[in-house]
Amino acid sequence: MPAFADFFSDTKTRPTAAMRAAMANAEVGDERAGEDPTVNRLVERCAALLGKSAAVYLPSGTMCNEIAVAVHCRPGDEVLCDATSHLIGYEGGGPAAIAGVMLNTIAGARGIYGAQQLRDKLRPDRPYAPRQRLVEVEQTANLGGGAVWPLAALREVADVAKAHGLATHMDGARLLNACVASGVAAADYAQGYDSVWIDFSKGLGAPGGAVLAGDAAFIAEATRLKFRWGGAMRQSGIIAAACEYALDRHVERLADDHANARTLARGIGEIAGLAVDVAGVETNLVYFDVVDERFDAARLAAAAFERGVRFSEMGARTLRAVTHLDVDAAAVEKALSVLREILA
Amino acid sequence: MPAFADFFSDTKTRPTAAMRAAMANAEVGDERAGEDPTVNRLVERCAALLGKSAAVYLPSGTMCNEIAVAVHCRPGDEVLCDATSHLIGYEGGGPAAIAGVMLNTIAGARGIYGAQQLRDKLRPDRPYAPRQRLVEVEQTANLGGGAVWPLAALREVADVAKAHGLATHMDGARLLNACVASGVAAADYAQGYDSVWIDFSKGLGAPGGAVLAGDAAFIAEATRLKFRWGGAMRQSGIIAAACEYALDRHVERLADDHANARTLARGIGEIAGLAVDVAGVETNLVYFDVVDERFDAARLAAAAFERGVRFSEMGARTLRAVTHLDVDAAAVEKALSVLREILA
Amino acid sequence: MPAFADFFSDTKTRPTAAMRAAMANAEVGDERAGEDPTVNRLVERCAALLGKSAAVYLPSGTMCNEIAVAVHCRPGDEVLCDATSHLIGYEGGGPAAIAGVMLNTIAGARGIYGAQQLRDKLRPDRPYAPRQRLVEVEQTANLGGGAVWPLAALREVADVAKAHGLATHMDGARLLNACVASGVAAADYAQGYDSVWIDFSKGLGAPGGAVLAGDAAFIAEATRLKFRWGGAMRQSGIIAAACEYALDRHVERLADDHANARTLARGIGEIAGLAVDVAGVETNLVYFDVVDERFDAARLAAAAFERGVRFSEMGARTLRAVTHLDVDAAAVEKALSVLREILA
Amino acid sequence: MPAFADFFSDTKTRPTAAMRAAMANAEVGDERAGEDPTVNRLVERCAALLGKSAAVYLPSGTMCNEIAVAVHCRPGDEVLCDATSHLIGYEGGGPAAIAGVMLNTIAGARGIYGAQQLRDKLRPDRPYAPRQRLVEVEQTANLGGGAVWPLAALREVADVAKAHGLATHMDGARLLNACVASGVAAADYAQGYDSVWIDFSKGLGAPGGAVLAGDAAFIAEATRLKFRWGGAMRQSGIIAAACEYALDRHVERLADDHANARTLARGIGEIAGLAVDVAGVETNLVYFDVVDERFDAARLAAAAFERGVRFSEMGARTLRAVTHLDVDAAAVEKALSVLREILA
Repeated sequence: MPAFADFFSDTKTRPTAAMRAAMANAEVGDERAGEDPTVNRLVERCAALLGKSAAVYLPSGTMCNEIAVAVHCRPGDEVLCDATSHLIGYEGGGPAAIAGVMLNTIAGARGIYGAQQLRDKLRPDRPYAPRQRLVEVEQTANLGGGAVWPLAALREVADVAKAHGLATHMDGARLLNACVASGVAAADYAQGYDSVWIDFSKGLGAPGGAVLAGDAAFIAEATRLKFRWGGAMRQSGIIAAACEYALDRHVERLADDHANARTLARGIGEIAGLAVDVAGVETNLVYFDVVDERFDAARLAAAAFERGVRFSEMGARTLRAVTHLDVDAAAVEKALSVLREILA
Repeated sequence: MPAFADFFSDTKTRPTAAMRAAMANAEVGDERAGEDPTVNRLVERCAALLGKSAAVYLPSGTMCNEIAVAVHCRPGDEVLCDATSHLIGYEGGGPAAIAGVMLNTIAGARGIYGAQQLRDKLRPDRPYAPRQRLVEVEQTANLGGGAVWPLAALREVADVAKAHGLATHMDGARLLNACVASGVAAADYAQGYDSVWIDFSKGLGAPGGAVLAGDAAFIAEATRLKFRWGGAMRQSGIIAAACEYALDRHVERLADDHANARTLARGIGEIAGLAVDVAGVETNLVYFDVVDERFDAARLAAAAFERGVRFSEMGARTLRAVTHLDVDAAAVEKALSVLREILA
Repeated sequence: MPAFADFFSDTKTRPTAAMRAAMANAEVGDERAGEDPTVNRLVERCAALLGKSAAVYLPSGTMCNEIAVAVHCRPGDEVLCDATSHLIGYEGGGPAAIAGVMLNTIAGARGIYGAQQLRDKLRPDRPYAPRQRLVEVEQTANLGGGAVWPLAALREVADVAKAHGLATHMDGARLLNACVASGVAAADYAQGYDSVWIDFSKGLGAPGGAVLAGDAAFIAEATRLKFRWGGAMRQSGIIAAACEYALDRHVERLADDHANARTLARGIGEIAGLAVDVAGVETNLVYFDVVDERFDAARLAAAAFERGVRFSEMGARTLRAVTHLDVDAAAVEKALSVLREILA
Repeated sequence: MPAFADFFSDTKTRPTAAMRAAMANAEVGDERAGEDPTVNRLVERCAALLGKSAAVYLPSGTMCNEIAVAVHCRPGDEVLCDATSHLIGYEGGGPAAIAGVMLNTIAGARGIYGAQQLRDKLRPDRPYAPRQRLVEVEQTANLGGGAVWPLAALREVADVAKAHGLATHMDGARLLNACVASGVAAADYAQGYDSVWIDFSKGLGAPGGAVLAGDAAFIAEATRLKFRWGGAMRQSGIIAAACEYALDRHVERLADDHANARTLARGIGEIAGLAVDVAGVETNLVYFDVVDERFDAARLAAAAFERGVRFSEMGARTLRAVTHLDVDAAAVEKALSVLREILA
């Protein structure tokens, strides 16, 4: 068993030796000037993967989201998103602070809302009201437990948006997890969405990097914002080489993370004092509740940490375990063993 | 009966002859330069009325709200307010567009939330999350049906806010309605709130003008924003004279509006096909629903308008009637008679 | 001679008795709802006067400027304007704070720059540079001494702007002064400018109010910002009636102000210790310098104020005298007599 | 001689084999969570180097500048800087778009302004004017030809700023070039400046990365903005290892770049048709003018590029050559030989 099993987040993955070698050998240039061949190749590949005509390399997924919102919207516009959207509580108030937009939240189920719920939020344009401009979805829905938006649901939401002249954006931080879990291609999920991005620093195991895709005009404007915010870097091919490596070698293996997550969930489901929706574990996120009155999330997390297992607290009695490249079946075993010991 | 009875809003009030005379005779100066004696007197009186040390004259209540938010907060901060707050849907997205703030909404009852509900929304400061900064209340709660926040509830909310280092703001568009309805002084309601404003263009019957009050540092900064946004005007004493007149002659008479609203509500409650919460009519707003299947809000409003009565639509089956200076008991009679005729 | 002669600014004008009567009798409605007949008539007249298809009523000239900039531009865009533009130092940083734009200043002569100077500032679009978007002029140029842009110069600047795909905006705070001084129609001056406004609170003598004109799409968007910033008011017809009165009765008389300004300038030119460019006094602004070593601007202004004459300080040794409705030939005489006495 | 000599910018440097090895072996963690040991060590070392108590790692120098401005200022504030400041034309309008600040430019000499020039720009606070808040300097001054601010000049400017209650910020993109050229320690230059940063992607030869330093409260707020803008990354230690390597091995060698720049300038000074201020070449930037009428900057740059030497165009007749890690004495020889050939 590993000495330490870190289920805190899939952002904890460290580059493998092979990935490090790819970085060490990367061909690089001045990315800000469009001269980094590795970055250029990566964005082309991502645009193709996502079914868009253009793409831009950015330092993080948060910057992808924030730039997309700022390009699609003008100050005072309204973005419609699920009440669990990453935009709300995890991006430092950027949607308001940088793009000047208001968020109008929809109470979806596990981070997924229906076309009718969206329709119910639409209203005629009035000069005194925020102008509705953008519809956002998150595939998979992180705070929704890693739930996968069904293709049909995504299409219906996009159709409603388009019928009302609204732009559409997909936060694809874990889009490839959805693809691997469902067998649906990324470009198919992204169809109908004007912008979409993938993140290489989560399950894919790269040390950073994200790629935002859209049409050429969108990407030109996004690039302008990238420069403005200081997201343009120099020999980014070093990191981009890790991203490309991950694209080649670390996508299909997300299935292992999903299998590990299910194993973990099933195990948790058998421990008295914990509660988990096993059927709801579709990808690599396992949310579970502490029902044992002796504990709350903080105390359970602390007790597990002492024993070499790290979870993240997501609520007073809710914890999250994330499977990824650096936690294997043995780590899952360890996690279960530690939980059993604590709750015994 | 009046030829036309306008229950659309209390903003529809037209200045009376006596108010017009007060305006015609107003002593004026350059308000932007602090030289308008009527404006200066008005803001002093309002500061005293609201129990604050300073105040500033502004062209509208929306500007009062927007400036208060922008002074209390920095971009990326979070404002906690009721889910029916005027800030959300009636100020053009200003909280995000101008102040750069995120709104975190609380599901109160009739626009009034409890201290515990506020407490449940508070969270430790994290660098990735919007910084919680301001708590907002609306007295009376417009979309809450003109409900009056009880003094104790206001105090508890302010206490929770202060205990967590948050600023507090009261939208007092109809604060004086609350005072007249409850007998509580405006300064008592405003105690514990760092900023508060009253609007002269609603039930008070002036053609415009609002006064925002707070401490001296807050008002100095608010004045700076007033200049920036073009809210500084010149011989504003003309309008301020109407505001002062209203303060002298039109406050106590709000009781008439409340009595008329109750009469209207009771009458509506007796009409088959309409539904109203009579007990909930605490001030001058009457929200009522069309349950008669032959109508919806739009059709009923149109039918009433044809017959010389104007209501506002607030939802698919919800209408609002507002009593004010220009709709008297006879107008209420007319409204009821028209509604009865339509629904017969 | 008057007891007090206020040459501080043409914003000091107080409404006349006849103008007050017009206000007292104004037909009014809810301006925010588009129901104020006096406001509606005023904006139609102003649109026609300025040769534009639409217009919107606003509380101040500053709001006209700030809204125009915000409508024409997106955050990060660049506005090209004269180095003396009102936007820079008198609007509270609004261009950056509200519209998010950078100002690129042109060193014109007396507030007027040439087409070639504008051309020299243009550059190819680069993703790392602010996007050039708007060209602004001020007619007359306040800090340029009330200088009148020649029609040909305005046209050439607009032509350069249009050839490069830039929007154009005219700050017309004293546009009607230019018209009266030159005999050129306001619509002719405004031709080629996408937006233009006039202010009623300066030489025209109304207590407030300004009207911003442009095409229908521009005005629709400007109206949205008016709502957002709290510039929408209620029975604004009270003030608009003063504006309309001014449009009917106070335009041609601006010629008197110009004659008074010239008389004042000539007189100042004859006083030892003062220096003035008499030929440069084209409208109602007289900038003059204190060369007498015993004084600076502050001390001279204070000495004059004690004797019943108010000037404004515009620099360490520079004063400004503004003629307007409330300072007649006798006031000019008084000003000269006081200056002679002080400097004797 | 090298096949291609790239004098376009010191941002073109590619990581050396040893630097790549350092990256490949870097110990890393989740930087966003504060868990990357290499990043943590780098920022501690930079804080010490710059004489500040805290520091934060950021993806680029532009983000350092933009975050510093946004932390020091509120929307509507004014930043005083040289007319050649990088903030103006190279950061996408970020100062206005993101921080909402107005820039007030000082006409320094070679990017360096005097304390008296700063004093002349200061004015009393007025509610209608932007609030003066921040003074910015750039060490070395890029568009000033790489000129080094003398220590005394920096201190005087900081003293004036502090005496007027203004914050101070130093853009230290090439601060270490100044240190090497002058022998003054970075912390000495930075003394009196509330924030300062260094960039590892220029002469230091790392593929990216910059560190912004200040006091703990400033860095806490800067970190918040880093999260908001998406500047927080994950296993950033990969790049930070290159930065640390550069700090250990590539600082003193900047002297070689300076020597190469002087050699290049002297050579250019001997070529008929070119003009250069040899004495002004203090660091690694060589600005030179094409006076030969047959050429302009674009044509000369194109001709040189064809022959394997790249310069950057900085004006109609001005070119810039930058020396750095990847252009040695042989590259300088080649550049001179190519220039002689073209202009022969």
